[in-house]
Amino acid sequence: MNSLGDKLVFTSFGESHGAAVGGVLDGVPSGVAIDMPLVRHELVRRSGRGAEGVSARASREPDEVEWLSGVTEKDGVLVTLGTPVAFIIRNADARPEDYEVLRHTFRPGHADFVYEAKYGIRDWRGGGRASARETAARVVAGSVVRPLLAEKGIEISAELVQVGEERDKARFEALLREIKGDGDSVGGIVSCTVTGLAAGAGEPVFDKLQARLAYAVMSINGCKGFEYGTGFEGVALRGSEIWHPGEAPSPASGGIEGGISNGLPLSFRCVFKPAATIGKLYKGRHDACIAVRAVPVVEAMTALTIADFVL
Amino acid sequence: MNSLGDKLVFTSFGESHGAAVGGVLDGVPSGVAIDMPLVRHELVRRSGRGAEGVSARASREPDEVEWLSGVTEKDGVLVTLGTPVAFIIRNADARPEDYEVLRHTFRPGHADFVYEAKYGIRDWRGGGRASARETAARVVAGSVVRPLLAEKGIEISAELVQVGEERDKARFEALLREIKGDGDSVGGIVSCTVTGLAAGAGEPVFDKLQARLAYAVMSINGCKGFEYGTGFEGVALRGSEIWHPGEAPSPASGGIEGGISNGLPLSFRCVFKPAATIGKLYKGRHDACIAVRAVPVVEAMTALTIADFVL
Amino acid sequence: MNSLGDKLVFTSFGESHGAAVGGVLDGVPSGVAIDMPLVRHELVRRSGRGAEGVSARASREPDEVEWLSGVTEKDGVLVTLGTPVAFIIRNADARPEDYEVLRHTFRPGHADFVYEAKYGIRDWRGGGRASARETAARVVAGSVVRPLLAEKGIEISAELVQVGEERDKARFEALLREIKGDGDSVGGIVSCTVTGLAAGAGEPVFDKLQARLAYAVMSINGCKGFEYGTGFEGVALRGSEIWHPGEAPSPASGGIEGGISNGLPLSFRCVFKPAATIGKLYKGRHDACIAVRAVPVVEAMTALTIADFVL
Amino acid sequence: MNSLGDKLVFTSFGESHGAAVGGVLDGVPSGVAIDMPLVRHELVRRSGRGAEGVSARASREPDEVEWLSGVTEKDGVLVTLGTPVAFIIRNADARPEDYEVLRHTFRPGHADFVYEAKYGIRDWRGGGRASARETAARVVAGSVVRPLLAEKGIEISAELVQVGEERDKARFEALLREIKGDGDSVGGIVSCTVTGLAAGAGEPVFDKLQARLAYAVMSINGCKGFEYGTGFEGVALRGSEIWHPGEAPSPASGGIEGGISNGLPLSFRCVFKPAATIGKLYKGRHDACIAVRAVPVVEAMTALTIADFVL
Repeated sequence: MNSLGDKLVFTSFGESHGAAVGGVLDGVPSGVAIDMPLVRHELVRRSGRGAEGVSARASREPDEVEWLSGVTEKDGVLVTLGTPVAFIIRNADARPEDYEVLRHTFRPGHADFVYEAKYGIRDWRGGGRASARETAARVVAGSVVRPLLAEKGIEISAELVQVGEERDKARFEALLREIKGDGDSVGGIVSCTVTGLAAGAGEPVFDKLQARLAYAVMSINGCKGFEYGTGFEGVALRGSEIWHPGEAPSPASGGIEGGISNGLPLSFRCVFKPAATIGKLYKGRHDACIAVRAVPVVEAMTALTIADFVL
Repeated sequence: MNSLGDKLVFTSFGESHGAAVGGVLDGVPSGVAIDMPLVRHELVRRSGRGAEGVSARASREPDEVEWLSGVTEKDGVLVTLGTPVAFIIRNADARPEDYEVLRHTFRPGHADFVYEAKYGIRDWRGGGRASARETAARVVAGSVVRPLLAEKGIEISAELVQVGEERDKARFEALLREIKGDGDSVGGIVSCTVTGLAAGAGEPVFDKLQARLAYAVMSINGCKGFEYGTGFEGVALRGSEIWHPGEAPSPASGGIEGGISNGLPLSFRCVFKPAATIGKLYKGRHDACIAVRAVPVVEAMTALTIADFVL
Repeated sequence: MNSLGDKLVFTSFGESHGAAVGGVLDGVPSGVAIDMPLVRHELVRRSGRGAEGVSARASREPDEVEWLSGVTEKDGVLVTLGTPVAFIIRNADARPEDYEVLRHTFRPGHADFVYEAKYGIRDWRGGGRASARETAARVVAGSVVRPLLAEKGIEISAELVQVGEERDKARFEALLREIKGDGDSVGGIVSCTVTGLAAGAGEPVFDKLQARLAYAVMSINGCKGFEYGTGFEGVALRGSEIWHPGEAPSPASGGIEGGISNGLPLSFRCVFKPAATIGKLYKGRHDACIAVRAVPVVEAMTALTIADFVL
Repeated sequence: MNSLGDKLVFTSFGESHGAAVGGVLDGVPSGVAIDMPLVRHELVRRSGRGAEGVSARASREPDEVEWLSGVTEKDGVLVTLGTPVAFIIRNADARPEDYEVLRHTFRPGHADFVYEAKYGIRDWRGGGRASARETAARVVAGSVVRPLLAEKGIEISAELVQVGEERDKARFEALLREIKGDGDSVGGIVSCTVTGLAAGAGEPVFDKLQARLAYAVMSINGCKGFEYGTGFEGVALRGSEIWHPGEAPSPASGGIEGGISNGLPLSFRCVFKPAATIGKLYKGRHDACIAVRAVPVVEAMTALTIADFVL
């Protein structure tokens, strides 16, 4: 369904070319100040404005948040009431004509085919519900809870660490420009670190912290894999190389043991596929590397997941 | 918490050295025959009896299932009533003396430290709730639903595809024997394939099929990563190499597009760390490669996840 | 929390004197036409426009629904997409000055005291989240699902059957006028009947149909009791008077046996207290009998509950 | 489904004539001592041993609890581990021959008809899952959490306050004997009081405390109505009679305002129908007044509901 979390429940709604995308965040404590500069900053990051490798639409989207409920103004600051925080971002820049060709086409690597199969009806303009536009609501929700986490000393920071085979960040920009020039796309890997999380977050046996993080992150459009701690490359290690008596919590743990945070910094990585909407195939706005814009979304999903455990 | 699923809810309970492990499976339709040979076969696979690289305890565990509710005998066959199916497997072979040394020790890479931090009390004998013994209940639950999936033509099959750096299955046995002889452990990768799943399983936007599979699989002890479709290695691909107009559903999709099954075979991979309980450090029963015994657990978690969408 | 239902999930948000009240309805099938005349009709019923015994505010509220997502226009009709249906009703007529006196006052029989105790902050203007204004969102959500129920032959109809001690409907209007003239309030009983519901709705053992209906109806502001079948008055009956061999389903059942609908018409009653906001005490807009405006809300909550079982 | 609660989740399983009834209680903190004398005392109350108006089966049932998980012995006392507490009570005294006549009969006022309609298969011996025997598991679960509530000063006490039209408790026993002698049954009303509950329990807008209590109590077999505060009889009151300025929390509130406990004693009443299984119609064991044995079940459901809010 379109809700995430147990105690802090985030419900997302909206299609890319309908009236608005938005969300309801239920379970936010009362008296929390909304950090509007942070909200706007995160939305700009998500829109990719000014960044290489993102679609042109980004620079035209204002992404203004309209708060519908759950907040009240107090001394010039928006403060939560403890009731559901609902908000929308209107879809100002719908240009369905760019998508007219998609009316009777299923794009590979998209939800077009499966939505038609599942619902029998679909908003063929730009992906509808399956569009990455929906992630704007996630970013707003994440920005609402991050000040709460910061109060507990918890900081979340993600960054792009690989584009194609390139791991040297200094070269990302040139590579993305080249790929965009080719009308092509490429994959990317995002690394995310959480510091300041005390031991104890996570629940046996199904709501292990890594399971909930994987669930949250794998729900981001285009995400194809999640790993933490020793990850996939750790398959080649011997236990005696990494586990040492007396080291508990263990440095090789990735910050989680037995599904529960152990107080060490937590870090995980996730991979995004080369986008299927590429300039060689379709008109419209396309990203050379969707991982670029996924970075703040990864942070937002991490924030919502951790907040659900620690609030 | 200890429940999984929305419509088909599996609740797991039990500590490794308590009276029993077991589960309750709520939402199973009435009139389903329990395939007892399948249940027993899967439990033997999970126990690793006769396999290389698993602890000695395996060969002594009888793992007999006792059905407590939700089934009735009909013509010599156990048939579900549509009410919660509850079952237990008693812990016959508790040998706490082997674990006496752990009373005041936290093992690295284990839940010992975090359970003490979180609960203030822990069953120090063999891991308690965090022990892999709990997965026996998952295997039984998975075996209850697999005949239902098979009726719909859905088959699930997992296998070990990598041990350490070795990908040649013919050499797994020798490698495992060697590592066990060293009192050491090594990582492994399990690949799982689902065939016969019709288009339409999965829900936008948080209950995407890949997100729910990642959640289910990442909750298995020792699992450190999940990937599907182009996965982590696909980071280096260009979009133009894999996405071709007119190919929808797309062969590069891994069986899922937009979070929803597209009717093609679904496959994913998951990695298990080198076990932290190694013979060099501790007495007791240890696995050289926990991925060996994880194979039927991966299948069971996949079965429960898919059944939750398609029943 | 602010969500209701398992498969059809309704999330409500909004304070009476904030920007808007609204809701998200997740799980509505695709291709369902929104019956806008029905939506408007139900909102007018809820507003009590033109009815005796309701506050003056009612006649000034336009209650226009703005659809934010989940619907698309098709041949002049709003049709659902299968994605979350989000909507709002803006709060046009906020007059906080009427409520200024409440800034430092806790009204008896209201949420004022408990909200302050629970949240430490409250929107003292007109009740905020606890205001009956929130029920407008419930009525819209109910109106979205009622055409779906009607397709299955399920009709829901509630009516006011008692005002104070008066059970003669012909005399309700005069009585309400008199009470309003006194600046006082009185209790009322609403009876609700569901016809066309097939046998089988409801789940053992906690999601019994009567339990879920009671849960939904008791969440309406001012509701103090729920009964069905033989109800409270049936305490005096002997079993032999009402249960007769061979009568299964049984006419005395109220339409539910063992927690599951039995195919007979279902009926229940619920009682609303005399409103605590009375003209004798406070300025502002007050209802002489809140049961009057509760009638369409009872229908809406019944529709949402039954839809969750039968869709 | 068969689970109740959000943070403290109780899952019930078992048929009256299967191997056992039992439950899993997930979310109990660690370190809680199980009060075994309380558990046994409550089970005896539920069995009705020695009381008038209950079936003969009661006196033969030992109702021994077997703890399967989530507890460990510490200094001779069972203490919770913070993991799921699972337990069973075996069905020792199955006498299917008494029920042979029911094989092809649907009893009025029972689940027989609807279970057959819903599941196509049913355990016709004594009601199966729909039997009041299932409530033994509820009583055990309630007894596990009551010491936790008591620590917070919360005490729950229910009693039978009406049998048929009789409200004089001194006459209950004689009346019940008479009705039993007639092979008949009669309704009853149970009143329940909760003291020591601090202000703040309950959640807007659907998880209002009264809504969750109604849900929990209406799921008890034979319960036909729930009321609190001014209840059904309060319909005749004028607002000016019960609401007085400055009285917040208000004595007329029944302990709940705006869906949230206000710190005053909470009390509610619920009515049980005359049992449909009466001696005039069927052999087997029958209760003259099922409300007698419902008293500890009402307490248990109240305890579980309140614990879910306050733990």
